[in-house]
Amino acid sequence: MDLGLLYSGGKDSTLAALLLEDFYDVTLVTASFGVTDSWEYASRTADATGFDFETVELDDDVAAEAVEKMVEDGYPRNGIQHVHLHALEAVAGMDFDAVADGTRRDDRVPSVSRAQAQSLEDRHGVDYIVPLSGFGRGAVDALVDETLDVRTGPSEEIPKADYEDELRALLAREHDEKAVAKVFPDHTQTYVEGFSRADAE
Amino acid sequence: MDLGLLYSGGKDSTLAALLLEDFYDVTLVTASFGVTDSWEYASRTADATGFDFETVELDDDVAAEAVEKMVEDGYPRNGIQHVHLHALEAVAGMDFDAVADGTRRDDRVPSVSRAQAQSLEDRHGVDYIVPLSGFGRGAVDALVDETLDVRTGPSEEIPKADYEDELRALLAREHDEKAVAKVFPDHTQTYVEGFSRADAE
Repeated sequence: MDLGLLYSGGKDSTLAALLLEDFYDVTLVTASFGVTDSWEYASRTADATGFDFETVELDDDVAAEAVEKMVEDGYPRNGIQHVHLHALEAVAGMDFDAVADGTRRDDRVPSVSRAQAQSLEDRHGVDYIVPLSGFGRGAVDALVDETLDVRTGPSEEIPKADYEDELRALLAREHDEKAVAKVFPDHTQTYVEGFSRADAE
Repeated sequence: MDLGLLYSGGKDSTLAALLLEDFYDVTLVTASFGVTDSWEYASRTADATGFDFETVELDDDVAAEAVEKMVEDGYPRNGIQHVHLHALEAVAGMDFDAVADGTRRDDRVPSVSRAQAQSLEDRHGVDYIVPLSGFGRGAVDALVDETLDVRTGPSEEIPKADYEDELRALLAREHDEKAVAKVFPDHTQTYVEGFSRADAE
């Protein structure tokens, strides 16, 4: 069965891929508005972990709506959620039997309700799978420690393809750097370099 | 990391074990009130699938409370939920780094809220993992088809160790067969015989 996993190059979506690989032919799919080249970072992680990789183009209008939502709110949550649901629709519209993402139990956003999940499945004739939905922060951290080589740092310095890079660029373009700093306060990001040494042995 | 998976011998908890086995040293744990020998069916499936197996004894008072709840309600949901939470506590009190169960996204019962999950984790210093929490019915059926050899039939004829057998016996003992039929209307059960031939090849 072919599965398309919405992929950022971060530890959650990489771990999700590892959980699924015994059961599906996993393709990592990075969604992009074509605003920046941040998808290339995800492509490198896909290379390093040996998974197939594709990109899918998202709708510019959704990016514009997300940016306005975030400026209005003063925080990114609803904008990210809007983009994530759109990205899931895009992957579900590709030629996969199943689609998945790297959302964890303790994530506040993105969050896909059971009704939204079933609607996605029914409309596209796919299974929608959230492999980390039953894993809390402690379990994810422990598994990542055991399996992945991860780089951690402030969000501006860690390249990743999780919408944030492109939404930041759009925010700066449509508004200014102050709007970026307001919507995205400093926080820590992670980026997967590959498998950990322990795992490779 | 050692993980104890609450185990019935059914397809969901068997699939949960397969999803976890690359990441944890999985022990299948079947909970029993000591009322019937239904745990033996789970032990056989554990043998057939090559997992370590243990049993854990549950508290008689919890069984009695569950039976009264089910008779009062006329359906089993709240009684099963009561037993399941108690069983999770019992496994969390054993010597594992993580505990898990086979609950799926679309299960109405048992259902463990995020707050209950975090409380279990904090009190026992374990991770609580629900590997099928992000898998809907379609995905579970597809994976089971691919990996397991499953027997299906009416619930009275299919042996399983998912509390139902023992609660039925207690209901019959404390009340009568009419009470059993009222609380547990005919429904279909599954029992895992082992891996499917395709998987074994």
